[in-house]
Amino acid sequence: MIESLNKAFCALPGVGNKTAQRFVYHLLERNREGGFELAKALVDAMEHVQSCHSCRTLSEQQICTICANSTRDHSQLCIVETPTDIHAIEQSGVYSGLYFVLSGYLSPIDGIGADELGLDDLAQKLSNNSVSEIILATNATVEGEVTAHYISTMARQFEVKITRIAHGIPIGGELEYADMNTIAHALSGRKNYD
Amino acid sequence: MIESLNKAFCALPGVGNKTAQRFVYHLLERNREGGFELAKALVDAMEHVQSCHSCRTLSEQQICTICANSTRDHSQLCIVETPTDIHAIEQSGVYSGLYFVLSGYLSPIDGIGADELGLDDLAQKLSNNSVSEIILATNATVEGEVTAHYISTMARQFEVKITRIAHGIPIGGELEYADMNTIAHALSGRKNYD
Repeated sequence: MIESLNKAFCALPGVGNKTAQRFVYHLLERNREGGFELAKALVDAMEHVQSCHSCRTLSEQQICTICANSTRDHSQLCIVETPTDIHAIEQSGVYSGLYFVLSGYLSPIDGIGADELGLDDLAQKLSNNSVSEIILATNATVEGEVTAHYISTMARQFEVKITRIAHGIPIGGELEYADMNTIAHALSGRKNYD
Repeated sequence: MIESLNKAFCALPGVGNKTAQRFVYHLLERNREGGFELAKALVDAMEHVQSCHSCRTLSEQQICTICANSTRDHSQLCIVETPTDIHAIEQSGVYSGLYFVLSGYLSPIDGIGADELGLDDLAQKLSNNSVSEIILATNATVEGEVTAHYISTMARQFEVKITRIAHGIPIGGELEYADMNTIAHALSGRKNYD
């Protein structure tokens, strides 16, 4: 029983045997109530959380709260890799448009193509002319860049402005500690100072 | 639902909001089966794991497998702070006696006294003369030392050998990086070289 709980915890990302053991003994010795609550929350979420039918993020309703919010700008569509990216962008507080979640990136070697990323749904959305700008906010990794490039090519057949989030030195970051690729991007993406 | 699962994960030691979020999205997006298994293992363990009636470690039976094992040396009793300490000592493979788990250390300020550590049970065990040696294996912290000292004073009324695990430079450790307290202990605890 202790062993199988240990093993079940190891299924979580970044949790090895030692960490799992710490979780198990903490719950058993100090917080059994918390253990029951976690079990209940797990079953609730695993059973009821689904994908938003519009933007594919994880949601408790068929249409997530962001897509259902009529005060947001429905003409902007920010394309992200995961639901956590939405959370990060929302916290910045500067974006009030909608999102589209790919749930991953193009990776033919893992069998992840346009279908798995829901690019048909995206094309469908773009074809009815309600979207005027798509913002490609995939990660600044090789896979993210390839995915952004693929989507931009696909989106060119529609009348839509295609933008990519800016890459450069992070705020608070020091040039000295930035890697050469970031500096190269920061230089080539320089803007007029006004 | 996602929020409450997030909060439930934050009850685990060392898990903050970001880590909890990572757990939640991982389970929801990639491993719902694992989520259900974790929930089941949690309920099983929280409901059925109890304290061993003999050594107070966490156990699925009334008497744990170590205490119930008649091939082990029942005359040696190793006193540890937590069940995880038993696990660590068992892995070293050099000890074949029994254990006694304090589930903490003396800390009057937190209301943890002799009663909470089960020292009555321990005195009971020592009084029937079946134990010939107790090994004080509490942590090498101030609290652990105080607890070891308290137990040794209490145990002196019984006819029992009282030992403390050795402290010094860890195997593979370099003198250069050892702290001064460890070096002081290593020097004062030096043995004849043979």
